[in-house]
Amino acid sequence: MEVDFGNITVVGFDADDTLWVNETYFRNAEEKFASLLDSYETKNQIDQELFKTEIKNLELYGYGIKGFMLSMIESALDLSNNRISQATITEILNLGKEMLTHPVELLDGVEQVLEALKDKYRLIVLTKGDLLDQERKLEKSGLTQYFHHVEVLSDKKEENYKNLLEHLEIPVEEFLMIGNSLKSDVLPILKIGAQAVHIPFHTTWLHEEVKMEEHNNDHLTLSTISDILKYLK
Amino acid sequence: MEVDFGNITVVGFDADDTLWVNETYFRNAEEKFASLLDSYETKNQIDQELFKTEIKNLELYGYGIKGFMLSMIESALDLSNNRISQATITEILNLGKEMLTHPVELLDGVEQVLEALKDKYRLIVLTKGDLLDQERKLEKSGLTQYFHHVEVLSDKKEENYKNLLEHLEIPVEEFLMIGNSLKSDVLPILKIGAQAVHIPFHTTWLHEEVKMEEHNNDHLTLSTISDILKYLK
Repeated sequence: MEVDFGNITVVGFDADDTLWVNETYFRNAEEKFASLLDSYETKNQIDQELFKTEIKNLELYGYGIKGFMLSMIESALDLSNNRISQATITEILNLGKEMLTHPVELLDGVEQVLEALKDKYRLIVLTKGDLLDQERKLEKSGLTQYFHHVEVLSDKKEENYKNLLEHLEIPVEEFLMIGNSLKSDVLPILKIGAQAVHIPFHTTWLHEEVKMEEHNNDHLTLSTISDILKYLK
Repeated sequence: MEVDFGNITVVGFDADDTLWVNETYFRNAEEKFASLLDSYETKNQIDQELFKTEIKNLELYGYGIKGFMLSMIESALDLSNNRISQATITEILNLGKEMLTHPVELLDGVEQVLEALKDKYRLIVLTKGDLLDQERKLEKSGLTQYFHHVEVLSDKKEENYKNLLEHLEIPVEEFLMIGNSLKSDVLPILKIGAQAVHIPFHTTWLHEEVKMEEHNNDHLTLSTISDILKYLK
């Protein structure tokens, strides 16, 4: 595949599962949640019910850990027919609090890539989710110094990207987005005429998955973030 | 009191309890919360415990309804010694969901003020809290058209304002902030050398209250937002 990043002056990075580990903690929390409820339902049923509750509440709560906590509590009440113990609800609250205070684990190669690109490109972070939580993770990551701008979006649809590039006065043809989610980081970016590189993370939230026929748009997929240095010089 | 807004080119508005009603819904939710728990404790004790829990969790959850919901659940478990019923926890979740879907009620005079100022000043919204919730309220308010920029901050300290004005390339001496909270909208703004007008709302969250000795800085206090039109022409 031929790629030409010659026009690129600004590189946008997704944060969760692109710069640092995130989805893994949700998977772990889901495991623990299922074991708290294993006297009521099968793991499979618990997973499905929690996912359904999260999607039902997504418009109301948005992305992030607090909404996930509230959806876990709601699912626990539903799945147990209100028999879940009060102590278990406290355990669910604690599961969420642990996620919020978890140390940030950078993905391999991230710092070297930022170091290599920082003088040639304007680097920005474009993430969605909870404002405070994302700011806190960026601060804990020690990466703040590399970025000219950090934007936390409530969602990552074409419209959100278009408005942001306009606001930051970045011409679409000069913008490259790097991220782990085809749905949020790649497809909407290609649709607005900018470029995107996909770096899959080993686990993806079901809600972020896209069917293959939805993405027949050409884009580069790399297995690790370090590989971007072969293309951006 | 002599005020001179001759240099002002940009006017920033706080949103909650400045453009639209907000704190009232928290007060109402607290009333309902206390009545759900009235077999365990006095109203006064319930209020105090909920407030303590909110403040304890503030660093973790930040401002906004979702954190408030999680703190209500935690307080309910604490206050009842884990005897609160599962059905009551569902009622607490519903209390929060009602807050999130509540229609937006503009405060008197807001639209006229924005209409009168929009051609002479750059108007922006500076609010703190939950990103999605604040975006949703702005959209529901029908006021989006009046604003050049909307910024949701995780907090409203001097540093947050300084960074934002820098980012938006607004000289401090040209900036006037209008809001209902002395602690968040007035004092930090005066400290960075910009100007601020205080328009008290009839109810203030205890956490936003400041002791009188803390604010010996000169500023204009108005009883309604419409009064600003006497000073900004």
